[in-house]
Amino acid sequence: MIVILKQNPNRDQLDSLVSWLQEKGVIIHTSIGEAHTILGLVGDTSKLDIDLIAALDIVQDVKRVQEPYKNANRKFHPEDTVIPVGNTQIGGGNLTIMAGPCSVESEEQVVAIAQAVKASGATMLRGGAFKPRTSPYAFQGLGAKGLEYLKTARAETGLPIVTELMDVTQLPLFKDVDVIQIGARNMQNFDLLKAVGHQEKPVMIKRGMSATYEEWLMSAEYVMASGNNNVILCERGIRTFESYTRNTLDVAAIPVLRTLTHLPVIIDPSHATGKYWLVEPLARAAVAAEADGLQIEVHNDPAHALCDGPQSLKPEVFAPLARKLLELHAFMKGLDS
Amino acid sequence: MIVILKQNPNRDQLDSLVSWLQEKGVIIHTSIGEAHTILGLVGDTSKLDIDLIAALDIVQDVKRVQEPYKNANRKFHPEDTVIPVGNTQIGGGNLTIMAGPCSVESEEQVVAIAQAVKASGATMLRGGAFKPRTSPYAFQGLGAKGLEYLKTARAETGLPIVTELMDVTQLPLFKDVDVIQIGARNMQNFDLLKAVGHQEKPVMIKRGMSATYEEWLMSAEYVMASGNNNVILCERGIRTFESYTRNTLDVAAIPVLRTLTHLPVIIDPSHATGKYWLVEPLARAAVAAEADGLQIEVHNDPAHALCDGPQSLKPEVFAPLARKLLELHAFMKGLDS
Amino acid sequence: MIVILKQNPNRDQLDSLVSWLQEKGVIIHTSIGEAHTILGLVGDTSKLDIDLIAALDIVQDVKRVQEPYKNANRKFHPEDTVIPVGNTQIGGGNLTIMAGPCSVESEEQVVAIAQAVKASGATMLRGGAFKPRTSPYAFQGLGAKGLEYLKTARAETGLPIVTELMDVTQLPLFKDVDVIQIGARNMQNFDLLKAVGHQEKPVMIKRGMSATYEEWLMSAEYVMASGNNNVILCERGIRTFESYTRNTLDVAAIPVLRTLTHLPVIIDPSHATGKYWLVEPLARAAVAAEADGLQIEVHNDPAHALCDGPQSLKPEVFAPLARKLLELHAFMKGLDS
Amino acid sequence: MIVILKQNPNRDQLDSLVSWLQEKGVIIHTSIGEAHTILGLVGDTSKLDIDLIAALDIVQDVKRVQEPYKNANRKFHPEDTVIPVGNTQIGGGNLTIMAGPCSVESEEQVVAIAQAVKASGATMLRGGAFKPRTSPYAFQGLGAKGLEYLKTARAETGLPIVTELMDVTQLPLFKDVDVIQIGARNMQNFDLLKAVGHQEKPVMIKRGMSATYEEWLMSAEYVMASGNNNVILCERGIRTFESYTRNTLDVAAIPVLRTLTHLPVIIDPSHATGKYWLVEPLARAAVAAEADGLQIEVHNDPAHALCDGPQSLKPEVFAPLARKLLELHAFMKGLDS
Repeated sequence: MIVILKQNPNRDQLDSLVSWLQEKGVIIHTSIGEAHTILGLVGDTSKLDIDLIAALDIVQDVKRVQEPYKNANRKFHPEDTVIPVGNTQIGGGNLTIMAGPCSVESEEQVVAIAQAVKASGATMLRGGAFKPRTSPYAFQGLGAKGLEYLKTARAETGLPIVTELMDVTQLPLFKDVDVIQIGARNMQNFDLLKAVGHQEKPVMIKRGMSATYEEWLMSAEYVMASGNNNVILCERGIRTFESYTRNTLDVAAIPVLRTLTHLPVIIDPSHATGKYWLVEPLARAAVAAEADGLQIEVHNDPAHALCDGPQSLKPEVFAPLARKLLELHAFMKGLDS
Repeated sequence: MIVILKQNPNRDQLDSLVSWLQEKGVIIHTSIGEAHTILGLVGDTSKLDIDLIAALDIVQDVKRVQEPYKNANRKFHPEDTVIPVGNTQIGGGNLTIMAGPCSVESEEQVVAIAQAVKASGATMLRGGAFKPRTSPYAFQGLGAKGLEYLKTARAETGLPIVTELMDVTQLPLFKDVDVIQIGARNMQNFDLLKAVGHQEKPVMIKRGMSATYEEWLMSAEYVMASGNNNVILCERGIRTFESYTRNTLDVAAIPVLRTLTHLPVIIDPSHATGKYWLVEPLARAAVAAEADGLQIEVHNDPAHALCDGPQSLKPEVFAPLARKLLELHAFMKGLDS
Repeated sequence: MIVILKQNPNRDQLDSLVSWLQEKGVIIHTSIGEAHTILGLVGDTSKLDIDLIAALDIVQDVKRVQEPYKNANRKFHPEDTVIPVGNTQIGGGNLTIMAGPCSVESEEQVVAIAQAVKASGATMLRGGAFKPRTSPYAFQGLGAKGLEYLKTARAETGLPIVTELMDVTQLPLFKDVDVIQIGARNMQNFDLLKAVGHQEKPVMIKRGMSATYEEWLMSAEYVMASGNNNVILCERGIRTFESYTRNTLDVAAIPVLRTLTHLPVIIDPSHATGKYWLVEPLARAAVAAEADGLQIEVHNDPAHALCDGPQSLKPEVFAPLARKLLELHAFMKGLDS
Repeated sequence: MIVILKQNPNRDQLDSLVSWLQEKGVIIHTSIGEAHTILGLVGDTSKLDIDLIAALDIVQDVKRVQEPYKNANRKFHPEDTVIPVGNTQIGGGNLTIMAGPCSVESEEQVVAIAQAVKASGATMLRGGAFKPRTSPYAFQGLGAKGLEYLKTARAETGLPIVTELMDVTQLPLFKDVDVIQIGARNMQNFDLLKAVGHQEKPVMIKRGMSATYEEWLMSAEYVMASGNNNVILCERGIRTFESYTRNTLDVAAIPVLRTLTHLPVIIDPSHATGKYWLVEPLARAAVAAEADGLQIEVHNDPAHALCDGPQSLKPEVFAPLARKLLELHAFMKGLDS
């Protein structure tokens, strides 16, 4: 950590800061310049409150040198995390394809879609039972019954299921899902993050609409600090000034996160744009940038979906897409070897 | 609602759309042009799912004409909502000044600050017992004990208290607070919104970091649709590309919301910038733009605050500020009369 | 164009609006609802000033149905534009690779880099002679001399050159370049756009840092409306809240522009992130999303580059990257056939 | 400047960096920690290219401690800059009110508006002769003739005029205007900035739509480094995700710039929102936050303005607004004394 002092800092206050830092076991290197004095703090600075130091009268600025996350940090965990889910694995060079409807609407619907996407190469089934909807008047999901239908579809197809948890109180219902999804709007619902950290199912955290990489990784850190290391990150587009697409897919998130963390990175091209005809090109881009997987909305009758219709693909459109993505993934592996 | 069809729409699909809309009791006005056919939908379109229509093959675009919120909409409730809190009122021409520490740290601290801010003209006490912190390693608030200290401070000063609720499970502890605050990160925690909608304490919803006015009002609508009409909106800065300040205060939110809704609007200049020296000019701007109130962080020893130090004012700095804001508020009233 | 009137519009004003619109040769379809009256305007609405109509007292909102650009619009020009440049073509299924230094520094430097990138598969040489620098104290480019060095490099290698024009007064010096680049900061320098529209060299327009697709296409429209149809679009990252990367590459721009326009789309992964180690994954993503080409910074000694060092690749890093990109491009073509 | 080295930096490269820095006359303070080595660079670091250092293999990050602008920096020029314009002054505690039409349309129009706004208290006349329009098909301004009409209006009223220069080649026509305005879209048109820096008329630089404070001040620095110290800054709203208003007025820019620079700061509430009914509350906020002035669009017939109609006020609406703003400004001065 680096502390930049204001010009001519008050001597007493500086001495008191120095003593306080030394008490915390931090070693201080001082560089006195004409315009500024700089304190280089060395040692375990993770317990220093950066805001507290920045608030001091004599301090102009404080800059962190080390990342504030540890469990999620690749520096301290150089190996890729690989997460076993059912008979498949997320990470480790696999291309996980999670496909399924935005919302679970009926047993027939979800079973039919699950069968279709499995046949096309999907490795997991996605589907929402509890739905975060902007309007209180919109369909809020089938709830517990939706979870049951997902399990039926899993029993029929063998596909592990990933579905969104919105509130701590629903957690007991999620005992039997394979991956718990935390939605973008709940990325900084810290009590929810702690709760899923205290259980053992893998957790997939979607990036908040305006979350920085660091904030996102701190959300992963919440889960990991609570004891659950099976965390997956899912980029689903960020909010920018461009309104032609619902969000802007940040494809650079893939290689950036690969560097900052050891956790697997999934891309959701369906929510990233809100337009079904952009799913294919963005999914291709994600595979080429070496994402660990994709989450794609597939619906058997998009025009009658109860939510998010415009971004869903029909199974007959998904099938050739999945095939191409798998071929591209295989090609990319060959390219680097 | 306006539906813009693609060029040469399939006849059968168009007929089927028209019948479906008529079933819903909607009247359709059709304008056939060379390049586009436009359907003007008249009647109660609030139950039509805009996404579903937009997903149809023959549809190019759908544009909403009416706002998707009703309870929060000034069109259907032209009078300002005034919310009684303790011996004071929020809205109705008053300037509510909520002041206090970011975090409750001890009984002595919160009582001392409450006494100081009351003496300076504050009308409510703010303070966090449950704290949303970006890092799992940062101080998370005193919790239930913090709520007790706030109540002690209320008993000592008579100031009603406003404090943040982070999770549905903590709600029973909040029975005795005066205003429940929903933080920016929980603005779209829909289960939490429903829960506070099902109880009767006034609810202050902070704007999400990248929430549009409409999304914010839809969050108010969640609370109101659950039965609680005592909703207050609090602008606390939005996330933009500018990183010199922590957020960018959107002062236009005040007059815009005044037009769109009847709910009171509070400004938080402390979180809006993260810098104590910007609190005064932004608070002045807010009062001049006719905000219903302010939420300002005050700390007796900012340099030792356990969180958010840099944006807190000392009581001796808050005192002349509060005086000036009240004078400015009185002046603004005279200016318009 | 759709005009939504306020409730109970003044009769006289409405009649006057209707007559005025009819004078302009527009056909009006009126839908009268309880809450709103909607006018559907059919015919050539391109000369109607949307702002003027929106300003009328009786108007609540005006929504455009047709895009405001024509020459750049795929609807009126369904075939892809293919632009011949030297012995190569931009668009039409080719992968154009523009490579070279950010700044031309010396004849030796630019010739050496040109030879290296040609050997690796680049099809054009990029290099800045006039440099837009944020600071007046930073190196501003070699100017006319830099253009000469670029031409020498072209003579040595046969690679056509693309270089940035910053001001109308420099245009005479650009007679002999192959493609004129308009930088992101000048995307809405309308006099410059008109000037390059009045000459015949192809023009590559970089997207402004916060320009929407529509604004960007309107800039292309400026050039085309002045008579030059050889316009290329270059996405180079947009400004968002995320500051880890210099900008955020909007990979969706590729398929979106493919739909909206017939002009070729180039991706600049170097400026999009400002980090050399992100160039490869983003370049791959761009090729997989079917960009028409890439613009990549290559420098023989990045650590001593006079500008933009951190995002440049050494020739020995560029060589395998170019090979992989060309292989990936060939693979993508096979995938779709 | 602070240089943070990667773990275990290559010795030779470090020595070579250190020698190179010493050659530049910089003193280096080294702090060696377990995880990082930090170099604190002291002395005149303004000529060090931060990007070049950041590009070195051994460097993890470089952080600037000093601002990159000097002429515009309050640290080196503590006194407020006051700019005499005609018989008035910008800065120094005055409230400059620049009012007038978006576009000059005719001599009658601009003279009539000038007379009206002068009577209401405006101190300068604004009006566009050369207009930056997003569409090549929109009205581009009357050009030289428009400038003549503005001068006639000045002769009639005594109000100094401020008008936008779009291109270097038009500069000779601007010899007789009082303040040259550089539009938001040209904020980083560096050749234009240099050109207005080489002449002596005061220059008002509008903030670019996505420009940071630092970039904006660097544009001022361009003008000042070319010899013209009479620079005025004008905040006109920034681009954010919120699309209800055309832009988001960043009212914090006023106190932030007051701290960073000695140059006067003007607020344009008309362009900041694009809605006439938001002009008044935002103008009030700006005065309360102690802006040096306002630029407000006034039109005698907004419904027939050739551009930007929706944000213009009629003279009869402007008159009471100007009176209130002047009263508020006087009140604010009393408040602080």
